[in-house]
Amino acid sequence: MMEKGRLFLIPVTLGEINPLEVLPISVKKVIEVVDHYIVENEKSARRFIKSIHPGKSQPSLQLSTLNKFTEPSELPTFLKPCHEGTHVGLMSEAGVPGVADPGSQIVAMAHEQGIRVQPLVGPSSILMAMMSSGMNGQSFAFNGYLPIDKHDRRKRIKQLESLSLRENQSQALIETPYRNNKLIEELLTTLHPETRLCIACDITLPTEYIRTFSVKKWKQSIPDIHKRPALFIIHA
Amino acid sequence: MMEKGRLFLIPVTLGEINPLEVLPISVKKVIEVVDHYIVENEKSARRFIKSIHPGKSQPSLQLSTLNKFTEPSELPTFLKPCHEGTHVGLMSEAGVPGVADPGSQIVAMAHEQGIRVQPLVGPSSILMAMMSSGMNGQSFAFNGYLPIDKHDRRKRIKQLESLSLRENQSQALIETPYRNNKLIEELLTTLHPETRLCIACDITLPTEYIRTFSVKKWKQSIPDIHKRPALFIIHA
Repeated sequence: MMEKGRLFLIPVTLGEINPLEVLPISVKKVIEVVDHYIVENEKSARRFIKSIHPGKSQPSLQLSTLNKFTEPSELPTFLKPCHEGTHVGLMSEAGVPGVADPGSQIVAMAHEQGIRVQPLVGPSSILMAMMSSGMNGQSFAFNGYLPIDKHDRRKRIKQLESLSLRENQSQALIETPYRNNKLIEELLTTLHPETRLCIACDITLPTEYIRTFSVKKWKQSIPDIHKRPALFIIHA
Repeated sequence: MMEKGRLFLIPVTLGEINPLEVLPISVKKVIEVVDHYIVENEKSARRFIKSIHPGKSQPSLQLSTLNKFTEPSELPTFLKPCHEGTHVGLMSEAGVPGVADPGSQIVAMAHEQGIRVQPLVGPSSILMAMMSSGMNGQSFAFNGYLPIDKHDRRKRIKQLESLSLRENQSQALIETPYRNNKLIEELLTTLHPETRLCIACDITLPTEYIRTFSVKKWKQSIPDIHKRPALFIIHA
């Protein structure tokens, strides 16, 4: 029986930086041999492949797009090459695939179909913010986005704060970058003055900014991180 | 005023593998210039530094040990070099520091003292298992170890399963490697047959094994992962 191809989980950079500063050589080696990709954004995926492997032939690449507009009925065809013995790479738009992106659907499908899933090492803003927060790393949760509705948002912030206090669990969340400053304002007015807040933005980039202070202390000097990719972690 | 030294969060490998297969060149570059380290285990830290940078002088290294036996009163001296303008590196025994190890205490102290915390990219078994699980990556929690007491363990497993169902949140946990097989047995007898379980072990190593199946399917063929480092993730 022919051996199946693997599904490689391929990380990309978190912004404009030389890829080999933040990715091990194994990522370059995998890209060398893989021609089939499932990507969140075709343009940024092609740019990334070119940046880490300028010699690779772009016309021979076969890219399928997996994002919120992808029809579920398309998914099964994405893994077809694996059944024909060909490796497939999964790539998110930034950082590692399979967390905080739609990639996990494909990973789940790979397991169901007996395709080996092999993760590669790369930058994850969630994990790197968590490492750098100085908060409880024995118990932490990533919660994605807050609700949009103002009243629901406030309630959710309060809920995450209580959860953190009750379970001694650090609570991470993200926001669309152009709403970062608004979120900071909401966090500072909603959370208890002694609750700690980590603001981590532009992780791995030259402009990286990572600080953890109490809400009380943050109020003395509020950072402007408008449109910069950021992670927020709270611990009561 | 003299600029303070930084606290670099330096990842190491997850087992016997060439470091540059899983770590970017920036880790080697930081080790080139840093002589002061805070480490979980002195012996493995020296071995790691030697493996990634064979030319580095070992006698000139200054290592402070931070593990569960370290007195809290010793901690403030560990960051003294930063106040004298010298960089300090923090290293766990495996993977990234600051999560699932005692390192977060030092990171918290660095923030309080205005020392810049800079994370480097490397392998994290928690994150890599999460990426590879195919479970909900928009909401997940890492819960560390289960309680030791048999009744409390069962209760905790049930609690994590309900939490996962209620919040659509993937729940990750770890176990001391020689108790892995026992934990799998407990998970398979305690969880609902349709609950999905990811078993991820020897991540990044040649013996890597990562699979996600329903509890019902796992019962048909139970893997032996005795003494192999592993992560477990459940999703109801």
